Amino acid sequence: MSSTFGTLFRITTFGESHGPAIGVVIDGCPAGLEVDEDFIQHELDRRRPGQSRITTQRKEDDTFKILSGVFEGKSTGTPIAIVIENQDQRSKDYSHIAETFRPSHADYTYEAKYGNRDYRGGGRSSARETAARVAAGAVAKLLLLRQNIAIDAYVSQVGEIKAPSYDQLDLSKKEDNIVRCPDAGTADKMIALIDQVRLERDTIGGIVTCVIRNTPVGLGEPVFDKLHAALGAAMLGINAVKGFEYGSGFGGVKLKGSQHNDEFYNDGGRIRTRTNFSGGIQGGISNGEDIYFNVAFKPVATIMQDQASVNKRGEETSVSGKGRHDPCVVPRAVPIVESMAALVLADFLLLATTSKVAS
Amino acid sequence: MSSTFGTLFRITTFGESHGPAIGVVIDGCPAGLEVDEDFIQHELDRRRPGQSRITTQRKEDDTFKILSGVFEGKSTGTPIAIVIENQDQRSKDYSHIAETFRPSHADYTYEAKYGNRDYRGGGRSSARETAARVAAGAVAKLLLLRQNIAIDAYVSQVGEIKAPSYDQLDLSKKEDNIVRCPDAGTADKMIALIDQVRLERDTIGGIVTCVIRNTPVGLGEPVFDKLHAALGAAMLGINAVKGFEYGSGFGGVKLKGSQHNDEFYNDGGRIRTRTNFSGGIQGGISNGEDIYFNVAFKPVATIMQDQASVNKRGEETSVSGKGRHDPCVVPRAVPIVESMAALVLADFLLLATTSKVAS
Amino acid sequence: MSSTFGTLFRITTFGESHGPAIGVVIDGCPAGLEVDEDFIQHELDRRRPGQSRITTQRKEDDTFKILSGVFEGKSTGTPIAIVIENQDQRSKDYSHIAETFRPSHADYTYEAKYGNRDYRGGGRSSARETAARVAAGAVAKLLLLRQNIAIDAYVSQVGEIKAPSYDQLDLSKKEDNIVRCPDAGTADKMIALIDQVRLERDTIGGIVTCVIRNTPVGLGEPVFDKLHAALGAAMLGINAVKGFEYGSGFGGVKLKGSQHNDEFYNDGGRIRTRTNFSGGIQGGISNGEDIYFNVAFKPVATIMQDQASVNKRGEETSVSGKGRHDPCVVPRAVPIVESMAALVLADFLLLATTSKVAS
Amino acid sequence: MSSTFGTLFRITTFGESHGPAIGVVIDGCPAGLEVDEDFIQHELDRRRPGQSRITTQRKEDDTFKILSGVFEGKSTGTPIAIVIENQDQRSKDYSHIAETFRPSHADYTYEAKYGNRDYRGGGRSSARETAARVAAGAVAKLLLLRQNIAIDAYVSQVGEIKAPSYDQLDLSKKEDNIVRCPDAGTADKMIALIDQVRLERDTIGGIVTCVIRNTPVGLGEPVFDKLHAALGAAMLGINAVKGFEYGSGFGGVKLKGSQHNDEFYNDGGRIRTRTNFSGGIQGGISNGEDIYFNVAFKPVATIMQDQASVNKRGEETSVSGKGRHDPCVVPRAVPIVESMAALVLADFLLLATTSKVAS
Repeated sequence: MSSTFGTLFRITTFGESHGPAIGVVIDGCPAGLEVDEDFIQHELDRRRPGQSRITTQRKEDDTFKILSGVFEGKSTGTPIAIVIENQDQRSKDYSHIAETFRPSHADYTYEAKYGNRDYRGGGRSSARETAARVAAGAVAKLLLLRQNIAIDAYVSQVGEIKAPSYDQLDLSKKEDNIVRCPDAGTADKMIALIDQVRLERDTIGGIVTCVIRNTPVGLGEPVFDKLHAALGAAMLGINAVKGFEYGSGFGGVKLKGSQHNDEFYNDGGRIRTRTNFSGGIQGGISNGEDIYFNVAFKPVATIMQDQASVNKRGEETSVSGKGRHDPCVVPRAVPIVESMAALVLADFLLLATTSKVAS
Repeated sequence: MSSTFGTLFRITTFGESHGPAIGVVIDGCPAGLEVDEDFIQHELDRRRPGQSRITTQRKEDDTFKILSGVFEGKSTGTPIAIVIENQDQRSKDYSHIAETFRPSHADYTYEAKYGNRDYRGGGRSSARETAARVAAGAVAKLLLLRQNIAIDAYVSQVGEIKAPSYDQLDLSKKEDNIVRCPDAGTADKMIALIDQVRLERDTIGGIVTCVIRNTPVGLGEPVFDKLHAALGAAMLGINAVKGFEYGSGFGGVKLKGSQHNDEFYNDGGRIRTRTNFSGGIQGGISNGEDIYFNVAFKPVATIMQDQASVNKRGEETSVSGKGRHDPCVVPRAVPIVESMAALVLADFLLLATTSKVAS
Repeated sequence: MSSTFGTLFRITTFGESHGPAIGVVIDGCPAGLEVDEDFIQHELDRRRPGQSRITTQRKEDDTFKILSGVFEGKSTGTPIAIVIENQDQRSKDYSHIAETFRPSHADYTYEAKYGNRDYRGGGRSSARETAARVAAGAVAKLLLLRQNIAIDAYVSQVGEIKAPSYDQLDLSKKEDNIVRCPDAGTADKMIALIDQVRLERDTIGGIVTCVIRNTPVGLGEPVFDKLHAALGAAMLGINAVKGFEYGSGFGGVKLKGSQHNDEFYNDGGRIRTRTNFSGGIQGGISNGEDIYFNVAFKPVATIMQDQASVNKRGEETSVSGKGRHDPCVVPRAVPIVESMAALVLADFLLLATTSKVAS
Repeated sequence: MSSTFGTLFRITTFGESHGPAIGVVIDGCPAGLEVDEDFIQHELDRRRPGQSRITTQRKEDDTFKILSGVFEGKSTGTPIAIVIENQDQRSKDYSHIAETFRPSHADYTYEAKYGNRDYRGGGRSSARETAARVAAGAVAKLLLLRQNIAIDAYVSQVGEIKAPSYDQLDLSKKEDNIVRCPDAGTADKMIALIDQVRLERDTIGGIVTCVIRNTPVGLGEPVFDKLHAALGAAMLGINAVKGFEYGSGFGGVKLKGSQHNDEFYNDGGRIRTRTNFSGGIQGGISNGEDIYFNVAFKPVATIMQDQASVNKRGEETSVSGKGRHDPCVVPRAVPIVESMAALVLADFLLLATTSKVAS
C-alpha cells in the first residue's frame, strides 16, 4: 500500500524533497546477506544529481547511513533502515510553487487530496524519493547476485532517436557514456538532442529498456501477480512513467499467432524457446529466457518557460521553472528502473520457495 | 497476492477451466449496495464464448449463483461469493496437452513451478478464470455508478487496423457491432481481418482502449500505488496482455515538455486542464479529467497449425490446437478490461475516504 | 483483513448461516500435497452439530465439495475452494431476531455497522462459519503432518470443573468421550454439569487447552508477528472467546524471575529447557519445546429464558432463545481451536523458509 | 507482517537496542492532523528508563526527531518517519551474551532462526523497540482525541497484589504514583513488593488493565479481525506478555449464560447494556460501552543471579544479568499498552468509514 512495496522482501520509503531526510526500511531481507556499502553508494551515485552536463546541476551527495538490520557487515533478518539526509534544505523562495499549481506536476492533485501539502521542491512527489528505492534496490541486487541474476537497464530512446534492439547491443557498455546508451553512435545523437533541448529551455521524453538474465524458471504467480504485472506496477510507480511493455509489447499486436508463438526445443537437456516474443515470461511465470521490457518516460514537466496555470484561489496566472532541472530524465532513470526490477525479482524469488512441497 | 486483488474492495478468484466451478469472493464491498443480478448476467454475457462468429464457438452459459453476502437484494458488508459452474466438463482427449507444452502457453512454466498441473483446457491459466473477474467487476461497477463514474472500453486496434482516437468516437456505440469498435467503418475492416485470419487457422493481436469519466479528484496514492500503476497492474494481470500505456503513453516520449504539459485553467469555478496528455492522472492521483489508457493483447497462442515443441520428458515433438478457439481475443477482452478497471476504481474510491481529517 | 487470514498459507471464508452455502478459499497451499478428503470430512464431523446429547440437536451433514485446486488427489498450487451447502435453509419464523437484538449476540452491532443484516440464524456471525475454517484447517494439518507437527486440543475446564495440567494427561484419549476431556473422571463431571445446565435452560462457559508438539525451532517473527501473537489473534477470532494465555499465562504474573526462567541444557546435542514456562516460544519464536495455550470461552449467549432487550426501533421488549442450541460450546470448539492453530503453524512454516540465505 | 502493524493506519518499526537509532514510519495517517510534539515527548517520557527508583536506572533521553510527513505542524498524508537515536552505544563487554543464551530471552531462538544476531543489549528483541511504538501510538492518540476516544491503562496487579476493578477506580489518578496504580493504598503495597524483589536481585510479574471510553459503535470486523482479536494480537506482540483477556475474560468461563448476558435497555434514546461482561465488544464489533481488557506480563527474564544455560557451541555454562534492569516491567508497560491500543483503534476507526454506502 501507498509507501510500501513487496510481500516478503518489502520496502517502505519515507521523506520529502526538502525535509530533514529521506529513507527506506527494508523488511524481510534474509539474514546472512553481505551488505556491501560501497555497492549501495555506487548505485546511489548513478542516480545522483549533478553527475554530468545533461542532468540537473544541483549538488547532492546522497550519502547514506544504515540505522539498523546489519551487524558485522551482514543482514540480521530484522528491518534494514537506511537514511539519506537532505543537504539542500536552505530556505528558498518557493512562493511560486506554494500558491500556483505547476502544469503536469502533482501540485494540484496533492492539494485536492490532502489539503496540507509540503510544496517545497515538490515534497513527497519529488523524484528525490527514488533515491531511497535505489538504496533498497542495491540490497535486492546483492541478494539476486548470489544466484547470478543480472539486471541491466539502459536508455534505448530519446525523443525520436532509437538504439538497436537489446540483443544487438553489448550491455556491459551501458555506463560508458553520460546518456547510458550502450551504442556509442546512438548515444552521441541522444546527447546532442538533450543539449539542444536544454538550450531551448525545454525537456524531452525517452525510453529505458531493461534486461534480466539468468532468472530461474518458476518466478511469478498466476492470475493477478503475474511476474510482468508486478514489474509493470513497479515501473509505473516511477515518476514520469507513461507506459510499460514486455516481450513483443505493443508491436506484438500486429503479429499473427504463427509469427508470435515461441516454439520450444531441447537445448542439451534444458527446455528453451527458439524465439522470445514472450519476453521470458509465460502465463505470468518466468521460463528462464531473458526477461526484457520497455519503460516510457514523458518529458520532464518543469520547463524554463512561462506556462498558463491557476493558483490555490482558482485565479488564472502563469508559472515558470526556476533553478536547475533535468532536460531529460532517462539517463538518471536507468538505476531506478534496475532497482525497482531488483525489488520485484527479490520478492518473487522468496515467494517461489514455497510453491510446492518437498518431494 | 496471487489470487487476491485489492486492498479494501478485495476479490479472491478460484477455479480451473475444467473443474466443477470457478468463482470469486468479494470482501469489503460496503453494505447497502443494490446488487442487480440482471446487470451481473449482462456483463457475463458480454464475455461469454460463442457470442458471435468471430469468437470461439464453445457454448457456455456462464450463469452464476450468489452464495453469500447479499440479503433481500442488497449487500450486507460480508463476503459476496459468486460461483459459475463449468458446464463443459466432459472427459475429452487432453493427452496432447497433458504431455506436450503448447508454445507461448503457460504449460511449461506451470509444470516447472508446481509439478502437479491440471492440464485440462489450460486449468487455472485458462482465460475462463476471467469470468469470475467480470462478475466481481459488475458489482464494482454498481458501486461506481452511485457516483456516476462511467467506464467504457472498446477495441481500438486489430492487427494494423486502428480506430480514431477516443475523443473522436461516440462510445455509446461500442456494443453496436461484434468486434466492439464504436467506429462502424473501422469495425467492418477489423471483422474482415479476423474472418480472414480464422480461415488461415491463425490468430491476430489487438488493442483495447478504456476511458473512465467522472472520476472525482483525489483517487490514487503517491509513490507505489499511483492510480495508473494500479490500473497497469490490473491490466497486465489479464491473460495475453503485453503492454499498458495511459495518457500520452509511448507516443509521449517523442514530445517536448512545452508540447506535453497540460496547462490549467478555471472552467467556471472548476480547475481543469486545456489538454489531457496526463490521461486524467497527475502524480499518481486523479485530477478529474478523463482517464484513458491502452492495453496491448498478443495474438492468441492456440492456432490450428502444427508447431514444434517438447514434451514433459524433454523430447522434441509437435503440437496443434484442437477444438474451437478465438481467432482474436480483443472483442471478448473489452468487458474484462472494464471489470479490472472497475475493481481498481472501487478500491481507490474507498481508500480515498481517509486521506484527510474532517475539517 | 476481515474474512482473510494468513500471509502465505491464506484463507478467505464466506457464507451466512442460512444462505445457500458457506465455504473457504485456500490460497498459497504448496502444490503436491495429498489432499485426503476422508480426513477433511472426519474433521468436519468433529465440529458437526448433533454429534452427542450435550451439543445442539440440529441435524446438519456438513458434507463438502472441492471446487478447485486439487487434481488427481493432490494440490496444484492454485486456490483450493471448498463449499459446504446449508441444508437447513427452510423458511422459519425469525421475526424475534429480525426485530429484536438478542443480548450478548452480534445483532445490535451488525445492525449499527451495516444497516442491512441477514438476521436468519445470526447470518455471518453464526458459529456455522467456523465449519469453513475446520475444512481449511484440515488441509493445513495435512501439510503439518508431513513434518510430524501434531496439534491436540481438549476441554480442560467447564464452569468450575478443571482437568489436570496437560503434561499429566494422555492426549490420545481426547476423543474418548463426548466432552473431549482426556481425563475420564473429570469428563464425567463436566458432562454431568452440562446436562444439568441444559435442563435449567441455561448455558455454561469453559476452557479449551491446545498442545502443539514437534514444532521446528525458528517459527515466528519478532515484534508484531510473534508466534503467540498470531495464535492469540487466531483464537480470539473464534466466536465466544474471551481470553488467551500461553505458557505460564496469567498465573505467571505471580512468579518471580528466578522461578519462571527456563534454564537451558544440552540434551544429547539438542538444546532444550528444563522447565517450559515459556510455552515453547521465546521472543515470539518457537524453541522446539511443546507449545501450549488456553482459550477461554464464555457461556453461549442463546438461552431458553426470557431476557430484557430492545428492538430496532429502540423499544424495550424481551426475547428468548428458540430451537436447539449448545448448552456449552467447548466440546465442539476443540476442532476449531486445532484448525486455527494449524492455519497459523502452516503459514509460519512457509514464512520461515526465507529467514536466512543459504550458507 | 513482521515489523509492520495495521492496515490503513500502519506503522513499521526498525532498530536495535545498541545500533545507531531506532524509529518508526507511520503510513496512512490522514492529512491535516495537528502533530503535537510535546505530547509525543510526554508519552515517550512515560516509557523512558530511569524515571523512578522501581525502574531500570539506565539513562536515556529518548528524544525524537520527525524526518518527514509533517509540514507546518500538521500531517501531510505522507509517511511520518520518527527517529530516536540510541545514546548508550558505547562498547561494552557483551561477551556473556554473545556466546551464551540467557534463559527465557530470545537469544537462542534468534540464533537458530537467523544465524547472524546483534546480541548487544538483546538487539531487536530488546524492549527498547517499544519506544518507537509509543511515538507512533502518541500520533494515533492525537487522531482518536479528535473524536474524544480516551485510552487509559494502569497497573492492576503486581505479583499477588491486586487493585480493585476498574469501575471502582478514578483513572485520572493513574500517574499519581511511580507504579501507575490509581489506588493509592494498593500502589504502596506494589511499590514495597517491587523494592523487596529488587533487593533479592529478582523480578516479579504483573498485569496492566486498559480501559477505552467513548468508542463509537461499529468498530471491528467480523470473523478474523474482530476488534478484540486485533487488540489481543497487539498486546501479545509486546515483550513479556503471556496472556490477554477482555470483558469477563477467563473469569467468564465459570458463569452461566443467564448471569453473563448483557441485557439491552434504552438510555434516553441510546441503546446500552445494563451490565458489560461483553467488554464493549459484541460479535467482534464495538457496541459503545467501555472496552476493557487485561494484559499479563511475566517477570523480567534478566535477574542478577547465576542461572544454568548453554553457549553457542552447546556447552553447558551459567549466566547472570549485568548492569541495571527493571525489577518489574508493568509500570513502564502502561504507556506501551495504551500505545498499541491506540494504534488498533485508529486503524479500525479508518476502516469503519467504508462499512456501508451513503444512504
